[in-house]
Amino acid sequence: MKVGFAGLGAMGAPMATNLHRAGLLQAVWNRTAARSQALAAQLEVRAAASLADLAHDADAVVLCVAADADVLAVVDELAPALHPGALVIDCSTVSAATAHAAAATLATRQVDFLDAPVSGGIEGAERGTLAIMVGGSEQAFERAQPILQAMGKTISHFGATGSGQATKATNQIMCAGIIRAVAEAMAFAKAHELPLDKVVATLGQGAGSSWYFVNRAPNMIRNHYPAGFRVRLHAKDLAICRAMAAQHGVELPVVEAMLQEYGELIARGHGDEDISTAYRLKAELFERQPD
Amino acid sequence: MKVGFAGLGAMGAPMATNLHRAGLLQAVWNRTAARSQALAAQLEVRAAASLADLAHDADAVVLCVAADADVLAVVDELAPALHPGALVIDCSTVSAATAHAAAATLATRQVDFLDAPVSGGIEGAERGTLAIMVGGSEQAFERAQPILQAMGKTISHFGATGSGQATKATNQIMCAGIIRAVAEAMAFAKAHELPLDKVVATLGQGAGSSWYFVNRAPNMIRNHYPAGFRVRLHAKDLAICRAMAAQHGVELPVVEAMLQEYGELIARGHGDEDISTAYRLKAELFERQPD
Repeated sequence: MKVGFAGLGAMGAPMATNLHRAGLLQAVWNRTAARSQALAAQLEVRAAASLADLAHDADAVVLCVAADADVLAVVDELAPALHPGALVIDCSTVSAATAHAAAATLATRQVDFLDAPVSGGIEGAERGTLAIMVGGSEQAFERAQPILQAMGKTISHFGATGSGQATKATNQIMCAGIIRAVAEAMAFAKAHELPLDKVVATLGQGAGSSWYFVNRAPNMIRNHYPAGFRVRLHAKDLAICRAMAAQHGVELPVVEAMLQEYGELIARGHGDEDISTAYRLKAELFERQPD
Repeated sequence: MKVGFAGLGAMGAPMATNLHRAGLLQAVWNRTAARSQALAAQLEVRAAASLADLAHDADAVVLCVAADADVLAVVDELAPALHPGALVIDCSTVSAATAHAAAATLATRQVDFLDAPVSGGIEGAERGTLAIMVGGSEQAFERAQPILQAMGKTISHFGATGSGQATKATNQIMCAGIIRAVAEAMAFAKAHELPLDKVVATLGQGAGSSWYFVNRAPNMIRNHYPAGFRVRLHAKDLAICRAMAAQHGVELPVVEAMLQEYGELIARGHGDEDISTAYRLKAELFERQPD
C-alpha cells in the first residue's frame, strides 16, 4: 500500500515518520514546501510538488491539518487526482459536518473517507501510541488497519462518517469541565493553606479524581504550565464542539464558560501554555481578596 | 480508651459498629432515642440518656451529624460534661469555620478537637474503609489513631483545625465540575448517536477520564441513578464550599452552576438519586431540539 501524507506539523511529521518506519510512506506534502522537502530528504521519500502530485499514484492519503477549511480545501484538490478505490484518512480534529462534506466530495470519485482524529499529543505521535477515533464504513476501517496501526495504539471504530470527530469532541468537552473544576478546587485549597502535594496524593485516589487532577494539578502547585495541551488548541477544539451542538440548537454551558476563560488567558499571552494555566484566573480571585 | 458516639445515621451507625468491633465503643447517643437504644441493644453497649451522660466518663467522643448547627449544638452540650484531656472527633461534613468554633468551645475545657470528615459512602463506613481527612494538632491526631483506624483506611492529616473540612470541600468542588462535564459530554455523545458503551470504554483510558466518567457514565447510559452520592447531600456540601469561599470574598462558578442544577433536580423529585442524574437536564436539551 502506497501512502501519501499531507500536513507535516508538530503531529503530522512524526506520524508520517511512523508510516515510513512501517514501509508505507511514498510521498509527503506540506503547504510550506520547505518542510516537506526537509522531511522527504530525511526519510528518502518523494516531496510531492502539489496535492494532485501526492494523490495521483497513492492508494491512500493521510491528512493532518489545522482547521475545517483546510480539510475541505485539501480534499477539493486531492479528489480529482485520486484513483477510484483510493482512501483518504483525515487525522485532523474538525467538525463532524466537515467529515460529512469531505466524504461526499470523495464519494463522487469512488474514494473512501475516514475521519480519524487522534489523542495522545506530540509524545503519542512520536511513539506511535496515539488513540485514534475512527468514523466511516466498516470496510474502509478494515482497509485502513495497516496505516492506523503504524501511527496509533488504541484504534476504535465508532460508526459512520463523523462519529470519530463526535467521539473526540465528547472527550474535549470533558477535558474542559475537568480542568476548570480542578483549577477552582486547587485555588480553594491554596486559599485554605492546605499542603497541596498531600491533597493531590490523597484526593487523587478517591472519587473526585481525574487524569487531569493527578497529572496537571502539580503544574498548578509549581505555577508552571509547560505544554502539554495548549490553550489555543483546546480553544479551537471547543469552538468545534460549540458548532456541533449548535446544529442541534443546543448551547454547552461547560464549553462556553471555558471558551470565555481561554479567551482571557490568550489575551494575556498564555495561549501556548498547557490548559492547566486556567488555574491562574482562579488563584487570582482568592489573592485579590485576602481574608 | 472509652469512646462515645453521637449521631447514628446511615454513616454513623456502621462507623460506631466498627468502633465496637475494635473494642473501643462504650456508649451511643442519637437525637431520636429509639435508634440509639436499638443499636445499643444490638452491640451490648450503653445507650446514653443525654449528651452529658455520653460525655461524662468518655475519653473520646465521635460525632457524625448532619449540619453545622448540629455540630455546634452537640459540642455545646458535650463540653461541660467532658473531663479535661478528653478528645472530640467530628466526622460530619461542615465548614472549617464550624470546626474552629467547636475547637474554641472545647479548648476552654482543655478538650482537644479534630475535624475529620470522611469519604467513601455507606459502603466505606460499613467496611471500615473510609478515607478520613483530619485537621487539628499533631498530638491529638496521634492520640486518635486507634479510633480513626477502626473506622477508616486512608487517614491523612492536613494541618491545623479546619484543614480536614477544607480538604473535603476541595474534593466536593471537583466532583461538581466533573459530573457536570461528564453529563454534558454524554448528552452530546448520545445526540450524535455514538455507541456509548464503547465511548466510555475508550475515553475512560485517556486524558479526559475521571472516576465519575468510568463509574457513573454507565448510569447515564441506562438512565438509572441509584444512590450513590445523593444530589441532596452533595448540594449540602456545595453550600458549605460556597460559604467557605465567600469568607474570602470569592464566588465559585463551578459550584454555583451545579447548585443551580441541583435545585432544579431536587424540585423535580430527583434529590435522592445519585448525582449522575445531572445527565437528565443535559439530555433533555438535546431531545427538545431534534435536528
